[in-house]
Amino acid sequence: METVATYRAHGGTQGVYRHASTETRTDMSFAVFVPPHAEGARLPVVWYLSGLTCTHANVMEKGEYRRACAELGLILVAPDTSPRGEGVPDDAEGAYDFGLGAGFYVDATEAPWAANYRMWSYVTAELPALVAAHFPADMARQSIMGHSMGGHGALTIGLSFPERYRAISAFAPIVAPALVPWGRKALGRYLGEDKAAWRRHDALALIEDGARLPALLVDQGEADQFLREQLRPELLETVCASAGQPLTLRMQPGYDHSYYFVSTFMADQLAWHAERLG
Amino acid sequence: METVATYRAHGGTQGVYRHASTETRTDMSFAVFVPPHAEGARLPVVWYLSGLTCTHANVMEKGEYRRACAELGLILVAPDTSPRGEGVPDDAEGAYDFGLGAGFYVDATEAPWAANYRMWSYVTAELPALVAAHFPADMARQSIMGHSMGGHGALTIGLSFPERYRAISAFAPIVAPALVPWGRKALGRYLGEDKAAWRRHDALALIEDGARLPALLVDQGEADQFLREQLRPELLETVCASAGQPLTLRMQPGYDHSYYFVSTFMADQLAWHAERLG
Repeated sequence: METVATYRAHGGTQGVYRHASTETRTDMSFAVFVPPHAEGARLPVVWYLSGLTCTHANVMEKGEYRRACAELGLILVAPDTSPRGEGVPDDAEGAYDFGLGAGFYVDATEAPWAANYRMWSYVTAELPALVAAHFPADMARQSIMGHSMGGHGALTIGLSFPERYRAISAFAPIVAPALVPWGRKALGRYLGEDKAAWRRHDALALIEDGARLPALLVDQGEADQFLREQLRPELLETVCASAGQPLTLRMQPGYDHSYYFVSTFMADQLAWHAERLG
Repeated sequence: METVATYRAHGGTQGVYRHASTETRTDMSFAVFVPPHAEGARLPVVWYLSGLTCTHANVMEKGEYRRACAELGLILVAPDTSPRGEGVPDDAEGAYDFGLGAGFYVDATEAPWAANYRMWSYVTAELPALVAAHFPADMARQSIMGHSMGGHGALTIGLSFPERYRAISAFAPIVAPALVPWGRKALGRYLGEDKAAWRRHDALALIEDGARLPALLVDQGEADQFLREQLRPELLETVCASAGQPLTLRMQPGYDHSYYFVSTFMADQLAWHAERLG
Protein backbone atom coordinates (compact mmCIF):
# COMPACT_ATOMS: atom_id res chain seq x y z
CA MET A 1 0.00 0.00 0.00
CA GLU A 2 1.30 3.41 -1.03
CA THR A 3 0.46 6.69 0.67
CA VAL A 4 -0.58 9.17 -2.02
CA ALA A 5 -1.15 12.11 0.34
CA THR A 6 -1.98 12.89 3.94
CA TYR A 7 -3.51 16.04 5.38
CA ARG A 8 -3.96 17.11 8.96
CA ALA A 9 -7.65 17.83 9.47
CA HIS A 10 -9.87 18.26 12.53
CA GLY A 11 -7.09 16.95 14.72
CA GLY A 12 -6.75 13.72 12.77
CA THR A 13 -5.31 12.57 9.46
CA GLN A 14 -7.08 12.49 6.13
CA GLY A 15 -5.13 10.18 3.86
CA VAL A 16 -5.36 8.95 0.30
CA TYR A 17 -3.82 5.56 -0.41
CA ARG A 18 -3.26 3.32 -3.43
CA HIS A 19 -2.63 -0.38 -3.79
CA ALA A 20 -2.58 -3.07 -6.44
CA SER A 21 -5.87 -4.90 -6.05
CA THR A 22 -5.95 -8.63 -6.69
CA GLU A 23 -9.73 -8.49 -7.06
CA THR A 24 -9.92 -5.78 -9.72
CA ARG A 25 -6.46 -6.43 -11.21
CA THR A 26 -5.91 -2.67 -11.18
CA ASP A 27 -4.45 -0.07 -8.87
CA MET A 28 -7.19 1.16 -6.55
CA SER A 29 -7.25 4.42 -4.59
CA PHE A 30 -9.18 4.99 -1.39
CA ALA A 31 -9.46 7.62 1.35
CA VAL A 32 -9.24 7.04 5.11
CA PHE A 33 -9.80 9.56 7.89
CA VAL A 34 -8.29 8.59 11.22
CA PRO A 35 -9.49 10.82 14.06
CA PRO A 36 -7.33 11.90 16.97
CA HIS A 37 -6.94 8.95 19.33
CA ALA A 38 -4.85 7.61 22.17
CA GLU A 39 -1.72 5.71 21.25
CA GLY A 40 -2.54 2.05 20.74
CA ALA A 41 -6.31 2.60 20.60
CA ARG A 42 -8.41 0.66 18.11
CA LEU A 43 -11.30 2.62 16.63
CA PRO A 44 -14.58 1.64 15.00
CA VAL A 45 -14.70 1.85 11.20
CA VAL A 46 -17.46 3.42 9.12
CA TRP A 47 -17.50 2.46 5.44
CA TYR A 48 -18.82 5.14 3.10
CA LEU A 49 -19.76 3.95 -0.39
CA SER A 50 -20.08 6.64 -3.04
CA GLY A 51 -22.51 7.12 -5.89
CA LEU A 52 -22.35 7.16 -9.67
CA THR A 53 -19.43 9.08 -11.22
CA CYS A 54 -17.64 9.45 -7.87
CA THR A 55 -14.17 8.46 -6.76
CA HIS A 56 -12.93 8.41 -3.16
CA ALA A 57 -12.44 12.17 -3.50
CA ASN A 58 -16.02 13.42 -3.69
CA VAL A 59 -17.01 12.64 -0.13
CA MET A 60 -13.49 13.49 1.07
CA GLU A 61 -13.88 17.02 -0.27
CA LYS A 62 -17.60 17.65 0.13
CA GLY A 63 -18.91 15.20 2.72
CA GLU A 64 -18.23 17.22 5.88
CA TYR A 65 -17.63 14.08 7.92
CA ARG A 66 -14.31 14.86 9.59
CA ARG A 67 -15.54 17.05 12.41
CA ALA A 68 -18.14 14.47 13.44
CA CYS A 69 -15.69 11.58 13.07
CA ALA A 70 -13.18 13.46 15.23
CA GLU A 71 -15.78 14.11 17.92
CA LEU A 72 -17.13 10.57 17.81
CA GLY A 73 -13.82 8.76 17.40
CA LEU A 74 -14.68 7.07 14.10
CA ILE A 75 -12.43 6.00 11.24
CA LEU A 76 -14.11 6.64 7.88
CA VAL A 77 -13.05 4.69 4.78
CA ALA A 78 -14.16 5.80 1.30
CA PRO A 79 -13.37 3.35 -1.53
CA ASP A 80 -13.57 4.14 -5.23
CA THR A 81 -16.72 3.14 -7.16
CA SER A 82 -15.14 0.97 -9.86
CA PRO A 83 -11.84 -0.29 -11.19
CA ARG A 84 -10.03 2.22 -13.40
CA GLY A 85 -7.00 2.32 -15.65
CA GLU A 86 -5.61 0.95 -18.87
CA GLY A 87 -7.39 -2.13 -20.12
CA VAL A 88 -10.45 -1.74 -17.88
CA PRO A 89 -13.51 -1.91 -20.12
CA ASP A 90 -15.98 0.96 -19.99
CA ASP A 91 -19.42 1.61 -21.42
CA ALA A 92 -19.04 1.92 -25.19
CA GLU A 93 -20.67 5.34 -25.15
CA GLY A 94 -19.00 6.45 -21.92
CA ALA A 95 -22.34 6.53 -20.09
CA TYR A 96 -22.10 7.93 -16.54
CA ASP A 97 -24.27 5.14 -15.13
CA PHE A 98 -22.34 2.06 -16.26
CA GLY A 99 -18.69 1.02 -16.30
CA LEU A 100 -16.11 3.42 -14.90
CA GLY A 101 -17.46 5.15 -11.80
CA ALA A 102 -20.44 2.79 -11.75
CA GLY A 103 -19.39 -0.58 -10.37
CA PHE A 104 -22.67 -1.04 -8.46
CA TYR A 105 -20.88 -3.07 -5.77
CA VAL A 106 -21.27 -6.42 -7.53
CA ASP A 107 -18.86 -9.10 -8.77
CA ALA A 108 -19.59 -9.09 -12.49
CA THR A 109 -20.06 -12.48 -14.11
CA GLU A 110 -20.51 -11.35 -17.70
CA ALA A 111 -17.77 -10.62 -20.24
CA PRO A 112 -15.98 -8.27 -20.57
CA TRP A 113 -16.77 -6.96 -17.08
CA ALA A 114 -16.03 -10.05 -15.01
CA ALA A 115 -12.25 -9.64 -15.12
CA ASN A 116 -12.12 -6.29 -13.29
CA TYR A 117 -15.54 -5.31 -11.97
CA ARG A 118 -15.36 -7.12 -8.63
CA MET A 119 -16.39 -4.32 -6.27
CA TRP A 120 -18.39 -6.65 -3.98
CA SER A 121 -15.35 -8.73 -3.08
CA TYR A 122 -13.13 -5.67 -3.10
CA VAL A 123 -15.28 -3.76 -0.60
CA THR A 124 -16.27 -6.70 1.60
CA ALA A 125 -13.00 -8.66 1.71
CA GLU A 126 -9.87 -7.26 0.09
CA LEU A 127 -10.06 -3.68 1.30
CA PRO A 128 -11.16 -4.57 4.88
CA ALA A 129 -8.09 -6.79 5.18
CA LEU A 130 -5.89 -3.92 4.02
CA VAL A 131 -7.56 -1.48 6.42
CA ALA A 132 -7.19 -3.93 9.30
CA ALA A 133 -3.49 -4.30 8.55
CA HIS A 134 -2.57 -0.64 8.12
CA PHE A 135 -4.86 1.47 10.33
CA PRO A 136 -5.80 1.52 14.04
CA ALA A 137 -9.10 -0.17 13.21
CA ASP A 138 -11.23 -2.34 15.45
CA MET A 139 -12.69 -4.64 12.82
CA ALA A 140 -15.12 -6.04 15.38
CA ARG A 141 -16.85 -2.65 15.23
CA GLN A 142 -17.74 -1.80 11.63
CA SER A 143 -20.70 -0.04 10.07
CA ILE A 144 -21.62 1.00 6.55
CA MET A 145 -23.32 3.91 4.84
CA GLY A 146 -23.54 5.22 1.30
CA HIS A 147 -25.10 7.65 -1.16
CA SER A 148 -27.28 6.77 -4.14
CA MET A 149 -25.54 3.81 -5.89
CA GLY A 150 -23.41 3.70 -2.72
CA GLY A 151 -26.60 3.58 -0.66
CA HIS A 152 -27.54 0.51 -2.70
CA GLY A 153 -24.12 -0.91 -1.87
CA ALA A 154 -24.45 -0.16 1.83
CA LEU A 155 -27.91 -1.72 2.03
CA THR A 156 -27.08 -4.88 0.09
CA ILE A 157 -23.76 -5.41 1.85
CA GLY A 158 -25.26 -4.62 5.25
CA LEU A 159 -28.18 -7.00 4.67
CA SER A 160 -25.75 -9.71 3.51
CA PHE A 161 -23.41 -9.41 6.52
CA PRO A 162 -25.70 -8.44 9.40
CA GLU A 163 -23.24 -9.88 11.92
CA ARG A 164 -20.41 -7.70 10.64
CA TYR A 165 -21.89 -4.21 10.25
CA ARG A 166 -23.48 -2.90 13.42
CA ALA A 167 -25.21 0.01 11.70
CA ILE A 168 -26.44 0.53 8.14
CA SER A 169 -27.69 3.83 6.76
CA ALA A 170 -28.00 5.57 3.45
CA PHE A 171 -28.49 8.91 1.74
CA ALA A 172 -30.93 8.73 -1.17
CA PRO A 173 -30.19 5.07 -1.93
CA ILE A 174 -31.20 3.02 -4.94
CA VAL A 175 -33.34 0.53 -2.99
CA ALA A 176 -34.73 -1.61 -5.79
CA PRO A 177 -32.21 -1.85 -8.64
CA ALA A 178 -34.12 -4.68 -10.31
CA LEU A 179 -37.07 -2.33 -10.79
CA VAL A 180 -35.44 0.94 -11.91
CA PRO A 181 -33.51 1.98 -15.05
CA TRP A 182 -30.08 2.54 -13.44
CA GLY A 183 -30.19 -0.82 -11.71
CA ARG A 184 -31.68 -2.84 -14.57
CA LYS A 185 -29.00 -1.58 -16.91
CA ALA A 186 -26.15 -2.30 -14.47
CA LEU A 187 -27.34 -5.67 -13.12
CA GLY A 188 -28.29 -6.82 -16.63
CA ARG A 189 -24.87 -6.11 -18.04
CA TYR A 190 -22.76 -7.11 -15.01
CA LEU A 191 -24.77 -10.20 -14.01
CA GLY A 192 -26.64 -11.18 -17.17
CA GLU A 193 -29.99 -12.90 -16.90
CA ASP A 194 -29.31 -14.74 -13.62
CA LYS A 195 -32.22 -13.31 -11.65
CA ALA A 196 -31.15 -15.11 -8.47
CA ALA A 197 -27.92 -13.08 -8.62
CA TRP A 198 -29.96 -9.93 -9.12
CA ARG A 199 -31.92 -10.68 -5.96
CA ARG A 200 -28.69 -10.90 -3.95
CA HIS A 201 -27.92 -7.35 -5.10
CA ASP A 202 -31.30 -5.78 -4.52
CA ALA A 203 -32.15 -4.50 -1.03
CA LEU A 204 -35.86 -4.95 -1.59
CA ALA A 205 -35.43 -8.56 -2.70
CA LEU A 206 -33.01 -9.35 0.12
CA ILE A 207 -35.58 -8.23 2.69
CA GLU A 208 -38.34 -10.13 0.86
CA ASP A 209 -36.06 -13.17 0.96
CA GLY A 210 -35.61 -12.93 4.71
CA ALA A 211 -32.57 -10.73 5.40
CA ARG A 212 -33.04 -8.57 8.49
CA LEU A 213 -31.21 -5.81 10.35
CA PRO A 214 -31.80 -4.47 13.86
CA ALA A 215 -32.30 -0.99 12.41
CA LEU A 216 -32.06 0.89 9.14
CA LEU A 217 -31.79 4.66 8.65
CA VAL A 218 -32.41 6.44 5.34
CA ASP A 219 -32.41 10.16 4.58
CA GLN A 220 -34.04 11.13 1.30
CA GLY A 221 -34.44 14.61 -0.18
CA GLU A 222 -37.95 15.39 -1.37
CA ALA A 223 -36.59 17.60 -4.16
CA ASP A 224 -34.22 14.87 -5.38
CA GLN A 225 -34.34 14.79 -9.17
CA PHE A 226 -34.04 10.99 -9.15
CA LEU A 227 -36.65 10.32 -6.48
CA ARG A 228 -39.55 9.02 -8.56
CA GLU A 229 -37.78 7.08 -11.29
CA GLN A 230 -34.57 5.70 -9.76
CA LEU A 231 -34.74 5.79 -5.95
CA ARG A 232 -38.35 5.01 -4.98
CA PRO A 233 -38.01 4.89 -1.20
CA GLU A 234 -41.73 4.09 -0.93
CA LEU A 235 -40.93 0.59 -2.18
CA LEU A 236 -38.50 0.09 0.70
CA GLU A 237 -41.05 1.46 3.12
CA THR A 238 -43.72 -0.97 1.93
CA VAL A 239 -41.45 -4.02 1.98
CA CYS A 240 -40.03 -3.16 5.41
CA ALA A 241 -43.52 -2.67 6.82
CA SER A 242 -44.73 -6.01 5.51
CA ALA A 243 -41.53 -7.83 6.58
CA GLY A 244 -41.39 -6.26 10.04
CA GLN A 245 -37.98 -4.77 9.20
CA PRO A 246 -37.48 -1.62 11.31
CA LEU A 247 -36.86 1.40 9.05
CA THR A 248 -36.47 5.07 9.80
CA LEU A 249 -37.08 6.87 6.51
CA ARG A 250 -36.63 10.61 6.88
CA MET A 251 -38.02 12.56 3.95
CA GLN A 252 -36.16 15.87 3.90
CA PRO A 253 -38.16 18.73 2.34
CA GLY A 254 -36.30 20.83 -0.21
CA TYR A 255 -33.15 18.70 -0.43
CA ASP A 256 -31.82 17.43 -3.74
CA HIS A 257 -29.43 14.57 -4.62
CA SER A 258 -26.18 16.52 -4.17
CA TYR A 259 -23.48 16.63 -1.52
CA TYR A 260 -25.23 19.72 -0.11
CA PHE A 261 -27.84 17.20 1.01
CA VAL A 262 -25.38 14.48 2.07
CA SER A 263 -23.21 16.89 4.07
CA THR A 264 -26.25 18.29 5.87
CA PHE A 265 -27.21 14.94 7.38
CA MET A 266 -23.73 13.40 7.59
CA ALA A 267 -23.05 14.31 11.22
CA ASP A 268 -26.44 13.05 12.30
CA GLN A 269 -26.03 9.70 10.54
CA LEU A 270 -22.52 9.33 11.97
CA ALA A 271 -23.83 9.96 15.48
CA TRP A 272 -26.43 7.24 14.88
CA HIS A 273 -23.64 4.88 13.80
CA ALA A 274 -21.48 5.82 16.79
CA GLU A 275 -24.29 4.88 19.20
CA ARG A 276 -24.42 1.41 17.66
CA LEU A 277 -20.64 1.01 17.42
CA GLY A 278 -20.20 1.47 21.14
CA MET B 1 -28.64 39.47 -10.90
CA GLU B 2 -29.25 35.94 -12.15
CA THR B 3 -29.60 32.85 -9.97
CA VAL B 4 -27.30 30.17 -11.37
CA ALA B 5 -28.24 27.47 -8.84
CA THR B 6 -29.60 27.05 -5.34
CA TYR B 7 -29.25 24.09 -3.02
CA ARG B 8 -30.94 23.35 0.27
CA ALA B 9 -28.19 22.80 2.85
CA HIS B 10 -28.10 22.71 6.64
CA GLY B 11 -31.61 24.13 6.75
CA GLY B 12 -30.69 27.18 4.67
CA THR B 13 -29.97 27.97 1.04
CA GLN B 14 -26.62 27.79 -0.70
CA GLY B 15 -26.89 29.83 -3.88
CA VAL B 16 -24.65 30.73 -6.80
CA TYR B 17 -25.42 34.00 -8.55
CA ARG B 18 -24.12 35.91 -11.55
CA HIS B 19 -24.31 39.56 -12.54
CA ALA B 20 -22.79 42.00 -15.02
CA SER B 21 -20.24 43.94 -12.99
CA THR B 22 -19.71 47.60 -13.82
CA GLU B 23 -16.37 47.51 -11.98
CA THR B 24 -14.79 44.58 -13.79
CA ARG B 25 -16.81 44.99 -17.02
CA THR B 26 -17.39 41.24 -16.95
CA ASP B 27 -19.97 38.82 -15.65
CA MET B 28 -19.05 37.91 -12.08
CA SER B 29 -20.21 34.85 -10.15
CA PHE B 30 -20.44 34.62 -6.38
CA ALA B 31 -21.81 32.28 -3.73
CA VAL B 32 -24.11 33.18 -0.83
CA PHE B 33 -25.29 30.95 2.00
CA VAL B 34 -28.38 32.20 3.79
CA PRO B 35 -29.05 30.26 7.00
CA PRO B 36 -32.52 29.38 8.27
CA HIS B 37 -34.10 32.54 9.71
CA ALA B 38 -37.37 34.07 10.75
CA GLU B 39 -39.40 35.79 8.03
CA GLY B 40 -38.33 39.40 7.75
CA ALA B 41 -35.15 38.95 9.82
CA ARG B 42 -31.96 40.72 8.78
CA LEU B 43 -28.79 38.71 9.38
CA PRO B 44 -25.12 39.62 9.80
CA VAL B 45 -22.90 39.08 6.77
CA VAL B 46 -19.49 37.39 6.77
CA TRP B 47 -17.35 38.01 3.68
CA TYR B 48 -15.03 35.17 2.76
CA LEU B 49 -12.25 36.04 0.32
CA SER B 50 -10.56 33.14 -1.43
CA GLY B 51 -6.95 32.46 -2.35
CA LEU B 52 -4.95 32.06 -5.53
CA THR B 53 -6.55 29.93 -8.28
CA CYS B 54 -9.92 29.82 -6.50
CA THR B 55 -13.38 30.80 -7.65
CA HIS B 56 -16.44 31.16 -5.40
CA ALA B 57 -16.76 27.37 -5.62
CA ASN B 58 -13.73 26.20 -3.63
CA VAL B 59 -14.92 27.34 -0.23
CA MET B 60 -18.50 26.51 -1.15
CA GLU B 61 -17.54 22.89 -1.71
CA LYS B 62 -14.71 22.41 0.78
CA GLY B 63 -15.01 25.13 3.42
CA GLU B 64 -17.43 23.38 5.82
CA TYR B 65 -18.99 26.69 6.85
CA ARG B 66 -22.68 25.97 6.44
CA ARG B 67 -23.32 24.07 9.63
CA ALA B 68 -21.70 26.82 11.70
CA CYS B 69 -23.42 29.59 9.76
CA ALA B 70 -26.76 27.84 10.27
CA GLU B 71 -26.17 27.51 14.01
CA LEU B 72 -24.88 31.08 14.37
CA GLY B 73 -27.33 32.77 12.00
CA LEU B 74 -24.70 34.14 9.62
CA ILE B 75 -24.91 34.89 5.91
CA LEU B 76 -21.65 33.99 4.16
CA VAL B 77 -20.71 35.62 0.85
CA ALA B 78 -17.87 34.22 -1.29
CA PRO B 79 -16.84 36.36 -4.29
CA ASP B 80 -14.63 35.23 -7.14
CA THR B 81 -10.92 36.14 -7.02
CA SER B 82 -10.62 37.99 -10.34
CA PRO B 83 -12.55 39.03 -13.41
CA ARG B 84 -12.87 36.29 -16.01
CA GLY B 85 -14.09 35.88 -19.57
CA GLU B 86 -13.41 36.92 -23.13
CA GLY B 87 -11.14 39.91 -23.42
CA VAL B 88 -9.88 39.82 -19.82
CA PRO B 89 -6.07 39.87 -19.95
CA ASP B 90 -4.20 37.09 -18.18
CA ASP B 91 -0.59 36.43 -17.35
CA ALA B 92 1.23 35.73 -20.63
CA GLU B 93 2.43 32.37 -19.36
CA GLY B 94 -0.79 31.54 -17.55
CA ALA B 95 0.92 31.73 -14.15
CA TYR B 96 -1.30 30.66 -11.26
CA ASP B 97 -0.24 33.62 -9.14
CA PHE B 98 -1.11 36.51 -11.41
CA GLY B 99 -4.06 37.46 -13.61
CA LEU B 100 -7.04 35.11 -13.71
CA GLY B 101 -7.73 33.73 -10.24
CA ALA B 102 -5.23 36.15 -8.72
CA GLY B 103 -6.76 39.63 -8.51
CA PHE B 104 -5.14 40.35 -5.13
CA TYR B 105 -8.08 42.56 -4.10
CA VAL B 106 -6.67 45.74 -5.65
CA ASP B 107 -7.88 48.20 -8.27
CA ALA B 108 -5.17 47.90 -10.91
CA THR B 109 -3.78 51.13 -12.29
CA GLU B 110 -1.41 49.68 -14.88
CA ALA B 111 -2.26 48.67 -18.45
CA PRO B 112 -3.61 46.23 -19.52
CA TRP B 113 -4.95 45.27 -16.10
CA ALA B 114 -6.67 48.50 -15.09
CA ALA B 115 -9.74 48.00 -17.27
CA ASN B 116 -10.95 44.83 -15.54
CA TYR B 117 -8.91 44.06 -12.42
CA ARG B 118 -10.89 46.16 -9.94
CA MET B 119 -11.46 43.63 -7.18
CA TRP B 120 -11.03 46.20 -4.39
CA SER B 121 -13.98 48.28 -5.55
CA TYR B 122 -15.88 45.17 -6.54
CA VAL B 123 -15.59 43.55 -3.11
CA THR B 124 -15.93 46.71 -1.00
CA ALA B 125 -18.62 48.59 -2.95
CA GLU B 126 -20.35 46.97 -5.91
CA LEU B 127 -20.97 43.51 -4.47
CA PRO B 128 -22.05 44.76 -1.02
CA ALA B 129 -24.72 46.91 -2.71
CA LEU B 130 -25.95 43.89 -4.63
CA VAL B 131 -25.99 41.73 -1.50
CA ALA B 132 -27.87 44.42 0.44
CA ALA B 133 -30.48 44.63 -2.31
CA HIS B 134 -31.11 40.91 -2.83
CA PHE B 135 -30.51 39.09 0.47
CA PRO B 136 -31.84 39.40 4.04
CA ALA B 137 -28.60 41.10 5.06
CA ASP B 138 -28.05 43.53 7.92
CA MET B 139 -25.28 45.63 6.36
CA ALA B 140 -24.66 47.33 9.71
CA ARG B 141 -23.25 43.99 10.86
CA GLN B 142 -20.52 42.83 8.51
CA SER B 143 -17.27 41.02 9.06
CA ILE B 144 -14.55 39.69 6.78
CA MET B 145 -12.26 36.67 6.60
CA GLY B 146 -10.12 35.04 3.94
CA HIS B 147 -7.52 32.45 3.04
CA SER B 148 -4.00 33.10 1.76
CA MET B 149 -4.36 35.82 -0.93
CA GLY B 150 -7.90 36.21 0.43
CA GLY B 151 -6.44 36.60 3.91
CA HIS B 152 -4.41 39.48 2.50
CA GLY B 153 -7.66 40.88 1.10
CA ALA B 154 -9.50 40.48 4.40
CA LEU B 155 -6.72 42.15 6.38
CA THR B 156 -6.21 45.09 4.02
CA ILE B 157 -9.92 45.69 3.54
CA GLY B 158 -10.63 45.28 7.24
CA LEU B 159 -7.83 47.66 8.20
CA SER B 160 -9.09 50.19 5.64
CA PHE B 161 -12.73 50.10 6.80
CA PRO B 162 -12.50 49.47 10.54
CA GLU B 163 -15.92 51.06 11.07
CA ARG B 164 -17.59 48.68 8.64
CA TYR B 165 -16.24 45.22 9.50
CA ARG B 166 -16.75 44.25 13.12
CA ALA B 167 -14.44 41.24 12.94
CA ILE B 168 -11.44 40.43 10.77
CA SER B 169 -9.75 37.06 10.64
CA ALA B 170 -7.66 35.02 8.26
CA PHE B 171 -6.38 31.56 7.45
CA ALA B 172 -2.71 31.52 6.42
CA PRO B 173 -2.79 35.09 5.05
CA ILE B 174 -0.20 36.89 2.96
CA VAL B 175 0.53 39.59 5.54
CA ALA B 176 3.33 41.50 3.81
CA PRO B 177 2.87 41.41 0.04
CA ALA B 178 5.48 44.11 -0.52
CA LEU B 179 8.11 41.81 0.99
CA VAL B 180 7.29 38.42 -0.56
CA PRO B 181 7.44 37.02 -4.11
CA TRP B 182 3.69 36.52 -4.69
CA GLY B 183 2.91 40.03 -3.52
CA ARG B 184 5.79 41.82 -5.21
CA LYS B 185 4.86 40.27 -8.53
CA ALA B 186 1.18 41.15 -8.20
CA LEU B 187 1.48 44.64 -6.74
CA GLY B 188 4.28 45.50 -9.17
CA ARG B 189 2.23 44.57 -12.19
CA TYR B 190 -1.20 45.78 -11.02
CA LEU B 191 -0.01 49.00 -9.35
CA GLY B 192 3.34 49.75 -10.97
CA GLU B 193 6.00 51.56 -9.02
CA ASP B 194 3.63 53.68 -6.90
CA LYS B 195 4.89 52.54 -3.49
CA ALA B 196 2.25 54.59 -1.65
CA ALA B 197 -0.37 52.49 -3.40
CA TRP B 198 1.52 49.35 -2.37
CA ARG B 199 1.36 50.46 1.27
CA ARG B 200 -2.44 50.75 1.07
CA HIS B 201 -2.52 47.09 0.01
CA ASP B 202 -0.10 45.68 2.54
CA ALA B 203 -1.41 44.75 5.99
CA LEU B 204 1.97 45.26 7.60
CA ALA B 205 2.37 48.75 6.10
CA LEU B 206 -1.21 49.71 6.97
CA ILE B 207 -0.56 48.89 10.64
CA GLU B 208 2.79 50.70 10.53
CA ASP B 209 0.94 53.67 9.05
CA GLY B 210 -1.55 53.76 11.90
CA ALA B 211 -4.50 51.57 10.95
CA ARG B 212 -5.94 49.72 13.96
CA LEU B 213 -8.57 47.09 14.69
CA PRO B 214 -10.11 46.09 18.02
CA ALA B 215 -8.98 42.51 17.43
CA LEU B 216 -7.40 40.34 14.80
CA LEU B 217 -7.44 36.53 14.58
CA VAL B 218 -5.11 34.48 12.39
CA ASP B 219 -4.79 30.70 12.11
CA GLN B 220 -1.61 29.47 10.44
CA GLY B 221 -0.55 25.89 9.77
CA GLU B 222 2.98 25.08 10.85
CA ALA B 223 3.37 22.58 7.99
CA ASP B 224 2.18 25.13 5.42
CA GLN B 225 4.43 24.83 2.34
CA PHE B 226 4.28 28.62 1.84
CA LEU B 227 4.96 29.60 5.45
CA ARG B 228 8.57 30.80 5.26
CA GLU B 229 8.68 32.42 1.84
CA GLN B 230 5.22 33.85 1.15
CA LEU B 231 3.21 34.11 4.37
CA ARG B 232 5.66 35.08 7.13
CA PRO B 233 3.25 35.54 10.04
CA GLU B 234 6.19 36.47 12.28
CA LEU B 235 6.34 39.83 10.49
CA LEU B 236 2.74 40.52 11.43
CA GLU B 237 3.42 39.46 14.99
CA THR B 238 6.36 41.85 15.30
CA VAL B 239 4.56 44.82 13.78
CA CYS B 240 1.42 44.25 15.86
CA ALA B 241 3.48 43.98 19.04
CA SER B 242 5.32 47.23 18.34
CA ALA B 243 2.14 49.04 17.25
CA GLY B 244 0.02 47.80 20.13
CA GLN B 245 -2.36 46.15 17.68
CA PRO B 246 -4.05 43.18 19.41
CA LEU B 247 -3.39 39.96 17.50
CA THR B 248 -4.24 36.36 18.21
CA LEU B 249 -1.95 34.28 16.04
CA ARG B 250 -2.61 30.58 16.42
CA MET B 251 0.13 28.40 14.98
CA GLN B 252 -1.48 25.04 14.22
CA PRO B 253 0.96 22.11 14.32
CA GLY B 254 0.83 19.74 11.38
CA TYR B 255 -1.59 21.74 9.23
CA ASP B 256 -0.79 22.66 5.62
CA HIS B 257 -2.19 25.35 3.29
CA SER B 258 -5.18 23.37 2.00
CA TYR B 259 -8.89 23.43 2.66
CA TYR B 260 -8.33 20.53 5.08
CA PHE B 261 -6.74 23.23 7.25
CA VAL B 262 -9.30 25.95 6.48
CA SER B 263 -12.27 23.68 7.12
CA THR B 264 -10.83 22.54 10.44
CA PHE B 265 -10.80 26.05 11.92
CA MET B 266 -13.73 27.50 9.99
CA ALA B 267 -16.39 26.91 12.65
CA ASP B 268 -14.15 28.35 15.33
CA GLN B 269 -13.40 31.52 13.35
CA LEU B 270 -17.08 31.92 12.50
CA ALA B 271 -18.02 31.66 16.19
CA TRP B 272 -15.45 34.38 16.90
CA HIS B 273 -17.08 36.54 14.22
CA ALA B 274 -20.57 35.84 15.55
CA GLU B 275 -19.58 37.06 19.02
CA ARG B 276 -18.51 40.38 17.51
CA LEU B 277 -21.47 40.65 15.15
CA GLY B 278 -23.96 40.51 18.00
